[in-house]
Amino acid sequence: MRTIDWEPTKNNIIMIDQTLLPREYRIIECVTIESLCEAIRTLRVRGAPALGAAGSFGVALAAHKSGASSLDGLMADILTAGQTIIGTRPTAINLSWGVARTIKAVEDARNTKEVRMFALDEAKTIADEDVEKNKQLGEHGAALLEDGDTVMTHCNAGRLACVDWGTALGVIRSAREQGKDIKVLSCETRPLNQGSRITTWELMEDKIPVTLITDSMSGHVMRKGMVNKVIVGADRITQDAVFNKIGTYSHSVIAKEHEVPFYVAAPVSTFDFEHMEDEIEIELRKSDELKFFGSYQVAPLNVDVYNPAFDATPMENVTAIITENGVFYPPLLIDEVRIKH
Amino acid sequence: MRTIDWEPTKNNIIMIDQTLLPREYRIIECVTIESLCEAIRTLRVRGAPALGAAGSFGVALAAHKSGASSLDGLMADILTAGQTIIGTRPTAINLSWGVARTIKAVEDARNTKEVRMFALDEAKTIADEDVEKNKQLGEHGAALLEDGDTVMTHCNAGRLACVDWGTALGVIRSAREQGKDIKVLSCETRPLNQGSRITTWELMEDKIPVTLITDSMSGHVMRKGMVNKVIVGADRITQDAVFNKIGTYSHSVIAKEHEVPFYVAAPVSTFDFEHMEDEIEIELRKSDELKFFGSYQVAPLNVDVYNPAFDATPMENVTAIITENGVFYPPLLIDEVRIKH
Repeated sequence: MRTIDWEPTKNNIIMIDQTLLPREYRIIECVTIESLCEAIRTLRVRGAPALGAAGSFGVALAAHKSGASSLDGLMADILTAGQTIIGTRPTAINLSWGVARTIKAVEDARNTKEVRMFALDEAKTIADEDVEKNKQLGEHGAALLEDGDTVMTHCNAGRLACVDWGTALGVIRSAREQGKDIKVLSCETRPLNQGSRITTWELMEDKIPVTLITDSMSGHVMRKGMVNKVIVGADRITQDAVFNKIGTYSHSVIAKEHEVPFYVAAPVSTFDFEHMEDEIEIELRKSDELKFFGSYQVAPLNVDVYNPAFDATPMENVTAIITENGVFYPPLLIDEVRIKH
Repeated sequence: MRTIDWEPTKNNIIMIDQTLLPREYRIIECVTIESLCEAIRTLRVRGAPALGAAGSFGVALAAHKSGASSLDGLMADILTAGQTIIGTRPTAINLSWGVARTIKAVEDARNTKEVRMFALDEAKTIADEDVEKNKQLGEHGAALLEDGDTVMTHCNAGRLACVDWGTALGVIRSAREQGKDIKVLSCETRPLNQGSRITTWELMEDKIPVTLITDSMSGHVMRKGMVNKVIVGADRITQDAVFNKIGTYSHSVIAKEHEVPFYVAAPVSTFDFEHMEDEIEIELRKSDELKFFGSYQVAPLNVDVYNPAFDATPMENVTAIITENGVFYPPLLIDEVRIKH
């Protein structure tokens, strides 16, 4: 199944619980906005494009579960739910994009039934478009890869970060569909190990050769000539920087040192042309993420921890950004990227 | 107690089991060469200078536990034990240095009793010298730190990597003894988390302010101006490179990018003037280290893993090497470093 979808008989959201991978493959249902927010906050669903769909399905869920009988009451409930959903991951622009687009889609609804219908239609459209965009993005990106390349990636910008296919890993899937032999080095991605848990799992499912390394090995493997390209996803792209999982910036510096091309693969919805890097708040996450693996303690319980979820990679470290509208080389020309936005 | 020591009533080696920290502080005894080798291999004792003492105490242990009644038989047993010990961690030069120095110390023994006595005396001397050298090294290094500095470190080059005091952390201890306010950023150090488990623990024991970060955050914290200096230890220093825990090279590239001084703190016994970087074998460790934390699974069981224990940092990325003989700025002049070696 897709990463996130709608369950039509009960009108609930269903998703793959990514916190359980690779130990267990379990589909969970979100029947309330609270359970959806919990799923977003604890990263049962994560990844910029998937969060766009989650935000949109969340508005549809609010529309279906609200007890309001009037149009005004329902619209008020939807707006409140939208704000609650956006607040769970403030750095992830796709989440607010998915919420805003779905709220806009119900603006002209004439009754509560139309609100529910329009919201759900929009959510399904966003999900379908996401898959379609990733395939286009994959095609554009695949042209940058050569037969025999080893690509290093960080975190999970795969099908599980999207509705399906993936961005960074979508590029690799598309290149392999074209018959190119592409191997992957997956950085484990501390502290939540999306690389070791999810990227390796989904690539192995697709029989794409993948080797797991620690994040700290990127220097060593690049110096040894074991990496031809780096491709990562993005949570937000301003004109001056790419916000992505913590560690991305370190890899970009090391790639520059070794003249390894550093690509970012992300749909146009990830772009934020309204802000510059220094205006964006970086989410700080709980210290327990560095103190425990499951229940296994690896640090003193009272140790001070600094745990930003993202870092910013300045545009000068980025070789190109791969989108569904084509490949863009910094400096970014806003109108060019926006063409179909 | 010291990291590793001799238990005189039973003639055994005793050590702090570092694999149990910070959950449990337990002293273990090694009564055979096999149990010592197991302790070295599983990193119950680790850290270049501590391994020097472990190698030396290991020869003393072999001398005490051998069943040989003749001088020749005992010497043969010692040589065999020495080879076995050295084979446990091939990249760590201090281990073979400790073994070789202790074997040399018994060369002139006239009987088995003298062999046992000379070996144990040498091991105790090596342990005492290690503490003394670290204090000297700490004094030299402390002069490089300024009041208010935040120092980033990787892995554990602390008192638990040595017999006592520490190298990289010894520099910080000495600077704080001089009244300088020094804070530490400790990289957790994947895959075995010596930074989160051991460095934080020993600094907190000494009430030295420490904040835990993931290895991948070094780029982010340096770009944010949160790091004034990097100090790491070393497992082997050739004329052209510093071998240290995997991830050190990545930090060195990032430090260079941000013009943050990158110091290596290590006793002269860590230098290997006989070889160049490309002649040194890097130990590859088991894939399970990236698949599990304790019994907690974080990667598919059959995933391919690349797990080198060390990387090499070329000398051009090193600002200076801090030793007990003073601070040396590359290019290294062999005779200068060697002065008291």
